[in-house]
Amino acid sequence: MSGNSIGKVLVITTFGESHGPAVGGVLDGFPSNILIDVSFIQSELNRRKTKSWFYASARNEEDEIEILSGIFENKSTGAPIAFIVRNKNARPADYKQLKDVYRPSHADFTWEMKYGIRDYLGGGRSSARETVARVAGGAIAKLLLNNHRISILSYVSQIGTVKLPDGFTVIDPDTILKSPVLCPDEETSHRMIALLENLKSEGDTTGGIINCIISGVPVGLGEPVFDKLQADLAKAMLSINAVKGFEYGSGFGAAAMKGSEHNDPFVFKDNHITTSTNFSGGIQGGISNGNEIFFRVAFKPPPTLMRDQKTVNSKGQKVILKGKGRHDVCMVPRALPIVEAMAALVLADHLIRNTK
Amino acid sequence: MSGNSIGKVLVITTFGESHGPAVGGVLDGFPSNILIDVSFIQSELNRRKTKSWFYASARNEEDEIEILSGIFENKSTGAPIAFIVRNKNARPADYKQLKDVYRPSHADFTWEMKYGIRDYLGGGRSSARETVARVAGGAIAKLLLNNHRISILSYVSQIGTVKLPDGFTVIDPDTILKSPVLCPDEETSHRMIALLENLKSEGDTTGGIINCIISGVPVGLGEPVFDKLQADLAKAMLSINAVKGFEYGSGFGAAAMKGSEHNDPFVFKDNHITTSTNFSGGIQGGISNGNEIFFRVAFKPPPTLMRDQKTVNSKGQKVILKGKGRHDVCMVPRALPIVEAMAALVLADHLIRNTK
Amino acid sequence: MSGNSIGKVLVITTFGESHGPAVGGVLDGFPSNILIDVSFIQSELNRRKTKSWFYASARNEEDEIEILSGIFENKSTGAPIAFIVRNKNARPADYKQLKDVYRPSHADFTWEMKYGIRDYLGGGRSSARETVARVAGGAIAKLLLNNHRISILSYVSQIGTVKLPDGFTVIDPDTILKSPVLCPDEETSHRMIALLENLKSEGDTTGGIINCIISGVPVGLGEPVFDKLQADLAKAMLSINAVKGFEYGSGFGAAAMKGSEHNDPFVFKDNHITTSTNFSGGIQGGISNGNEIFFRVAFKPPPTLMRDQKTVNSKGQKVILKGKGRHDVCMVPRALPIVEAMAALVLADHLIRNTK
Amino acid sequence: MSGNSIGKVLVITTFGESHGPAVGGVLDGFPSNILIDVSFIQSELNRRKTKSWFYASARNEEDEIEILSGIFENKSTGAPIAFIVRNKNARPADYKQLKDVYRPSHADFTWEMKYGIRDYLGGGRSSARETVARVAGGAIAKLLLNNHRISILSYVSQIGTVKLPDGFTVIDPDTILKSPVLCPDEETSHRMIALLENLKSEGDTTGGIINCIISGVPVGLGEPVFDKLQADLAKAMLSINAVKGFEYGSGFGAAAMKGSEHNDPFVFKDNHITTSTNFSGGIQGGISNGNEIFFRVAFKPPPTLMRDQKTVNSKGQKVILKGKGRHDVCMVPRALPIVEAMAALVLADHLIRNTK
Repeated sequence: MSGNSIGKVLVITTFGESHGPAVGGVLDGFPSNILIDVSFIQSELNRRKTKSWFYASARNEEDEIEILSGIFENKSTGAPIAFIVRNKNARPADYKQLKDVYRPSHADFTWEMKYGIRDYLGGGRSSARETVARVAGGAIAKLLLNNHRISILSYVSQIGTVKLPDGFTVIDPDTILKSPVLCPDEETSHRMIALLENLKSEGDTTGGIINCIISGVPVGLGEPVFDKLQADLAKAMLSINAVKGFEYGSGFGAAAMKGSEHNDPFVFKDNHITTSTNFSGGIQGGISNGNEIFFRVAFKPPPTLMRDQKTVNSKGQKVILKGKGRHDVCMVPRALPIVEAMAALVLADHLIRNTK
Repeated sequence: MSGNSIGKVLVITTFGESHGPAVGGVLDGFPSNILIDVSFIQSELNRRKTKSWFYASARNEEDEIEILSGIFENKSTGAPIAFIVRNKNARPADYKQLKDVYRPSHADFTWEMKYGIRDYLGGGRSSARETVARVAGGAIAKLLLNNHRISILSYVSQIGTVKLPDGFTVIDPDTILKSPVLCPDEETSHRMIALLENLKSEGDTTGGIINCIISGVPVGLGEPVFDKLQADLAKAMLSINAVKGFEYGSGFGAAAMKGSEHNDPFVFKDNHITTSTNFSGGIQGGISNGNEIFFRVAFKPPPTLMRDQKTVNSKGQKVILKGKGRHDVCMVPRALPIVEAMAALVLADHLIRNTK
Repeated sequence: MSGNSIGKVLVITTFGESHGPAVGGVLDGFPSNILIDVSFIQSELNRRKTKSWFYASARNEEDEIEILSGIFENKSTGAPIAFIVRNKNARPADYKQLKDVYRPSHADFTWEMKYGIRDYLGGGRSSARETVARVAGGAIAKLLLNNHRISILSYVSQIGTVKLPDGFTVIDPDTILKSPVLCPDEETSHRMIALLENLKSEGDTTGGIINCIISGVPVGLGEPVFDKLQADLAKAMLSINAVKGFEYGSGFGAAAMKGSEHNDPFVFKDNHITTSTNFSGGIQGGISNGNEIFFRVAFKPPPTLMRDQKTVNSKGQKVILKGKGRHDVCMVPRALPIVEAMAALVLADHLIRNTK
Repeated sequence: MSGNSIGKVLVITTFGESHGPAVGGVLDGFPSNILIDVSFIQSELNRRKTKSWFYASARNEEDEIEILSGIFENKSTGAPIAFIVRNKNARPADYKQLKDVYRPSHADFTWEMKYGIRDYLGGGRSSARETVARVAGGAIAKLLLNNHRISILSYVSQIGTVKLPDGFTVIDPDTILKSPVLCPDEETSHRMIALLENLKSEGDTTGGIINCIISGVPVGLGEPVFDKLQADLAKAMLSINAVKGFEYGSGFGAAAMKGSEHNDPFVFKDNHITTSTNFSGGIQGGISNGNEIFFRVAFKPPPTLMRDQKTVNSKGQKVILKGKGRHDVCMVPRALPIVEAMAALVLADHLIRNTK
């Protein structure tokens, strides 16, 4: 049983390879009568392609969304919403040399072993290009969340060894957009850029961490016991290429805390029950408690280097993989819309599941 | 749509409340003709109940497994395997005082808001007692994995502020069993115990981290793109009460690494292709690569304290929650079989999915 | 992937073999705060056991329901509702002779080929005893439907060659209960009984047809395009042992009709839009239209005869299967609560799916 | 939760409206390394469009398949296979008059009530045009079945009041193709055509019955207890627009049979165990027994008539629906590839489920 769908009631199924005719998806279970602003979907796709010197792999092509179904007179009809983005810039010849080579820390080896066949053009189905469909589907999910005043904000909190200062809080979302690396602290942002320049000159890459905050979530989203809200968020995040870790609320730091520090006391404020702290990260017992949901996602360095690397081919023979072309030094700034899209899909699914 | 099932082809559905008649589960999709050793299932349940002075909440009752179906002459038949464990020690009267109180960082508030009704006896369905069914189901999954020579080892790597030394490696699994806190390093184990004694005297609690290693996994488990092996492991772990984070392979540390450090070069060794390092944690492109799968799970401190805490009741009135009874200072040692059970269920599900 | 669950949002998973410790089920996705009358569930189970001379196989044991979870102070909590019925009357020794014999038109041969192992005690999992769990789960579904004023009525319309007169309509449900064969027409009922007496004396059996009417269904249940309401009803009915056919509304008769006869004209009546005829059987485009849903289910004759039959054993050797013990001459009267239970589960699932 | 997917391991999700940009589907779970002959898929789509005087609604456009993903160098890769067929002939203006009118026995009323919005262009998502995706997906499934020597044959056995003679058996599949109505008996075929001519002159329509035979099915397909092979076939057939009934093997006729007539004795023949008769229709206990699977599907008359009909609009006002344009007199001959496609999808799903 394959795994190209996610969600239980709002289900997205994605398809497409890096150099095939198109990537796309089908979003089923979306409520009827929701206004669908296609230009918003397009703008989310554009965020994925932010062009900077350190995002060398950004194709020049435009990722143009085409909606195939499910919308009538600009509104959702309750029918499945299918969409595609054509791959315009395919250059199969560039990849012939990789046909039999297993690139280190790529999916080449495992996919070939599993399926006995491999689309080696740009990684085929294992390519990050697959996330185009996630972002488009997530954008539609966001349109539903917006109607419920749920909003998602993400930013880069770490690139390589450079991190935001401890206790840093985002006051003004615009500070994120002002940073070329989408880090809300100007000084940290400068240091991140300096690091990326260094790595680029060395033909090297690095990882990073994305922080995400979801606001306006009503009490009650999440389904015990296995589909806890944090469990579905964790799965969604770990399903993104290159993600190595997920934590929410107090996260790994909780291990070192005392219960007396960590517990969030309930208080009655502004006519409703809430908590005075939020180490719980907005989720208790697997169900949202009305506070902000906060989580962090760790990414590994991109495995494609501008350096020669040792590896083997499918016959087990030693091969030197030449570093050529132009590739991302770090993927986290471009991954923000992907993290948000997956969060939006999870939240929208649970929103619909809860209102049944 | 509720969330009491997990797995796609090997599916476990669990049921039961802390003080209801029984907790149990149904495991469907289990292959036929597998020898089912009920005493092994029982022994896994017993691990969950390890009795030490700092596991005060361990009920004195025995958790006795009863298999209701799916086994014929000691072998699985392909029919669903249902099992129950009776709750023998229910004392509803103890909980009457909590009927209207929302305990801090428990599931009381969110569950009552979501369902409009709450079984307040020992947390009802939100109780950690629910994990009995996970452990029993996981034990059956382990029987299948054993047949494929896949084994799972877990240990405590951190309790509160006390951690295993950097770079520590488990050489001998017996060192884990020798430690009252199931930490493989004797010196660290002593310091953990000292910390727990201190916390106990303060009526406080703390969190911890569990490391888990899965050996013998064949190449090919995991289903792109959403059911990547790490994604399903992450979901399974975050579905456990009190878990706050998950990382695999290089984990959060990957964020600070360079690609040239992090990439795992392919080599040809012992007549097969493998990698010379394992920052990938045994999974590449969402699919197992034949190396050890390594992941870590962070737990928060138990929220029930032996101290008075401020909170509110369902009317929003301030209440002092009395610390009484006897409760766990730290849950990670008792959580090892739960982490292993969830890992076993995920691995067995993917094993069956892959051999189709 | 096994098939012991049915339903998409309200999901029932059943388990248990004919002569194992128990049969039972888990109903997940049931709304919270619904009053659960356990005596009603018990009364539905009792209907399955109607004792008459021609239902010889009815065990003398009582099928006593035990609810294990999901109910708190007589109300559903939103947690899964698990229930079991113990098998009290198991007599394994009776079945030893059948260990290697494939009974004609039973499941012995196919199950053994599929699983490589067979629980031959009373048919094991393939036994009609499995329907105990369907009836119990269906009873709980009926409690939800009752709250929405949806009711289900079924009756026997044909046994062997004896049928209700053409155009017969049930005016008074009590006429069904008055008939030992649950056929609402007294004269037909007499003829059915005469037929059954004859067959019994010959050691033979026969089939029959059940008609089912669901009233009070709101407009809107059913999910295009594959989960049309009639599609899910058809699957549910064909999943019952011995069912050979399903038709709804005009059914097979529609093949011979003209469009001008068959079309149901829309009219405005009693302040709402409805149709003046109901050849559609209450469903149009896969979605309920507010009219009565009407369907029919055909059953084959019970394959266990009180006569000797030729067959082969697992080695392919000819064997004479002795007709002994006491077995049903016809199963349709006892199948009414099963048909109703499956209809209730389908309707309740779609009711919940629609109100999301 | 919507219902635009069918299958458990081999899953097809379809999308698209009658007059939207395209109809299409995603087939996930298809094995890798299967040769995909796109011209075969195209030829199956062409069967759906057979042009005869009594299939007036056949659009002149060609239904051209475009494969978007999952195929690499003519072979399946294990990735989802997405495909679309563009709608070239959309004429929205033709449908403006139907915007507020509920056509009798169409889906207009129920869909508008359910979703609060209706794509009234040619029936939108409820149009039979949706079956294009079924036929394309079914064609791919057939490619897999062919590899396993499983073949599907269907033919028209009844149109209106004209039926094949009792006991008729198809000897030569070519006799089906020779008939303009795809009925294998020449004389019956002539009478069917005469009936259709009559109906056409009256502006009327009629229903019919399709028989389907699946050969070469191995023992073991089908999953107890709810996913019995016949249950999944029944659901698949009833999910087709206009289908009113399904029966397999002895079908509704079984009701009138005696057990001694109906039982299929096991015999040992040609070195394997089989049955000497096949009233079971190739399935016992929900699992294929190696014999031919035989089933029948009843269709209602097309509801669009070339006559005026009384109905109401969305305000409940009486309206005369004008019969105009050109529409099918009977749909069964064109439905053969749809019935076969759904059968192929069910069989392929169970084939994969069984080989796991």
